[in-house]
Amino acid sequence: MILTLALDAMGGDAGPEMVVEGASIALSQAKGISLHFQFFGQSSVVNAELIKFPDLFSVSTVFDCETIITNQTKPSLAVRSGRRSNMGMAIDAVAKGQAQAVISAGNTGAYMALSKVILKTLDGIDRPAIPAILPTINGKAVVLDLGANIDCTPENLVQFALMGEAFARRLLKIDRPSVGLLNVGSEELKGNATVQAAFQTLKEFPDLNFQGFVEGNDIAFGKTDVVVTDGFSGNIALKAIEGTARLIQHFLKEALASSLRGKLGYLIAKPAFKQLQMKGDPRRYNGAVFLGLKGIAVKSHGGTDPLGFSNAIGVAIDMIKHDFIKSVEDRLSLMTAKVEADL
Amino acid sequence: MILTLALDAMGGDAGPEMVVEGASIALSQAKGISLHFQFFGQSSVVNAELIKFPDLFSVSTVFDCETIITNQTKPSLAVRSGRRSNMGMAIDAVAKGQAQAVISAGNTGAYMALSKVILKTLDGIDRPAIPAILPTINGKAVVLDLGANIDCTPENLVQFALMGEAFARRLLKIDRPSVGLLNVGSEELKGNATVQAAFQTLKEFPDLNFQGFVEGNDIAFGKTDVVVTDGFSGNIALKAIEGTARLIQHFLKEALASSLRGKLGYLIAKPAFKQLQMKGDPRRYNGAVFLGLKGIAVKSHGGTDPLGFSNAIGVAIDMIKHDFIKSVEDRLSLMTAKVEADL
Repeated sequence: MILTLALDAMGGDAGPEMVVEGASIALSQAKGISLHFQFFGQSSVVNAELIKFPDLFSVSTVFDCETIITNQTKPSLAVRSGRRSNMGMAIDAVAKGQAQAVISAGNTGAYMALSKVILKTLDGIDRPAIPAILPTINGKAVVLDLGANIDCTPENLVQFALMGEAFARRLLKIDRPSVGLLNVGSEELKGNATVQAAFQTLKEFPDLNFQGFVEGNDIAFGKTDVVVTDGFSGNIALKAIEGTARLIQHFLKEALASSLRGKLGYLIAKPAFKQLQMKGDPRRYNGAVFLGLKGIAVKSHGGTDPLGFSNAIGVAIDMIKHDFIKSVEDRLSLMTAKVEADL
Repeated sequence: MILTLALDAMGGDAGPEMVVEGASIALSQAKGISLHFQFFGQSSVVNAELIKFPDLFSVSTVFDCETIITNQTKPSLAVRSGRRSNMGMAIDAVAKGQAQAVISAGNTGAYMALSKVILKTLDGIDRPAIPAILPTINGKAVVLDLGANIDCTPENLVQFALMGEAFARRLLKIDRPSVGLLNVGSEELKGNATVQAAFQTLKEFPDLNFQGFVEGNDIAFGKTDVVVTDGFSGNIALKAIEGTARLIQHFLKEALASSLRGKLGYLIAKPAFKQLQMKGDPRRYNGAVFLGLKGIAVKSHGGTDPLGFSNAIGVAIDMIKHDFIKSVEDRLSLMTAKVEADL
């Protein structure tokens, strides 16, 4: 299998140094796949980094860009500079079929806007969404949207539900994923007008395992495989979850360090704590796909390191291998066809 | 110090049995205070429970109510039955000055609506809010609103900020509490129109230590002493935090139980784990005050046990001892006066 990946070389807090080293890690980990990389950015800077990794250098092409978008560039300027920028050119490579996926650690707003314009959304989808895969007591849950869409209509939420279901079906390999709508209570009468209206539509949807409203704690309890919410509440909830995980690790360390027995117990049980820490390493979960586009665009966390960026590349490879866009498209058209048949 | 507390005897999943035993625990723990209790509910049932606790019986009065609101009663009916119900009569006792605070584990919506009608809101406050005190890396933070107000205007958010600041000043004894507005990013341009407008007003507020936008993870990191948000996002974030705390405890147990070394280490470090568990016991944090009313109304979690209910009573006693309403009122009028002087 030969894959070509388009990388925004200038995105991320650490810039080309991080992106290039991340690509080199991804290359060394790719098994049974022949990887090719296209780097988009300031070619002199990128080449200076590439030269450090001969194996990577031999499978890479560097494209020099007229405009450079960094994490300091305003989103409005980034969007205006369009296809001539590092970000825009990398996305365009996917639109033109020259690469199978694009990965960027750059500004989320600009990346989302450019991806939507250049790659276009799937039929029936107005706005792409960013899903996250979170650990639950009984496995994993897909939560979306995580910040791409601040103000959502009921229609947006319904589309997120369908996209999330297709995502869970394909990526998490769940046969008939259950879907919940995030709200302040599980009773039918709770919540604002937007979730109320989305609830009514989703309830009537044929062939969807819709479980109604779920609450914030139901994410961790794994009540449904897919949790749908607007980007405002979703982003706040995701970050609150991240903060809590770090806080408890801090409390745990503090409690164990406060006594000799605690320290001794920690030393003996160290492998168990390592196992717990691995589970919580944010670099393992780096890489969020923009769901609902006609091409694969993966967003890496801006503050990530090379290992984290290589995981974002891994997410893109996974999507390509699963023929992800096609399967989401098929599932969406199947469900839409059923709705139309019902009318 | 002699205090009279009005208790909704019928509220909570476990009803009078839980409420009466909770009062008896609170009575046994009150030091230097002479407590009196007024129970509002179905007198025969309440008396049958009271008789089991002679000390409590001797300082209690039971009021029989025309209408009984339980957790199964619809909020609309609860509000209609108004002052004649267990909940309404208990609140009315505070409005009439016959009790210094009311505590109920009953339906939140009905309790909030009745409290607002009977006790009235403070000058300058349109809608009461429910704050929570959450642990952070460097202490505690006040987060509000937690579900009382699903749809919020910028004015509501500004009022929550002022109430939260007064709350942190008085209850957490923080000299000049810092205040943050919860959003999807810390940059000034992020978020929806509501938080944008609230931001502009709060920025101009004299004598307020406003730190701008904060993100979900900043709650746990203790970036500000007060975190302001609408009741929809706030409720989802709070429950997501609770769920995550439970999930990590679950992962920790699982990791330690998966090997002999883990089990042995756990046994040795057991006191440290107990300390951690205590910190996370939800019963310790039970009891949320309705902030912004002209009287003290404390909401206990509906599913709590007697110990948890006694903690809610403890919250009410704390509020009375601190002359809480007066101090919030003073602080609000001081700040409002400064704004008027500025205009």
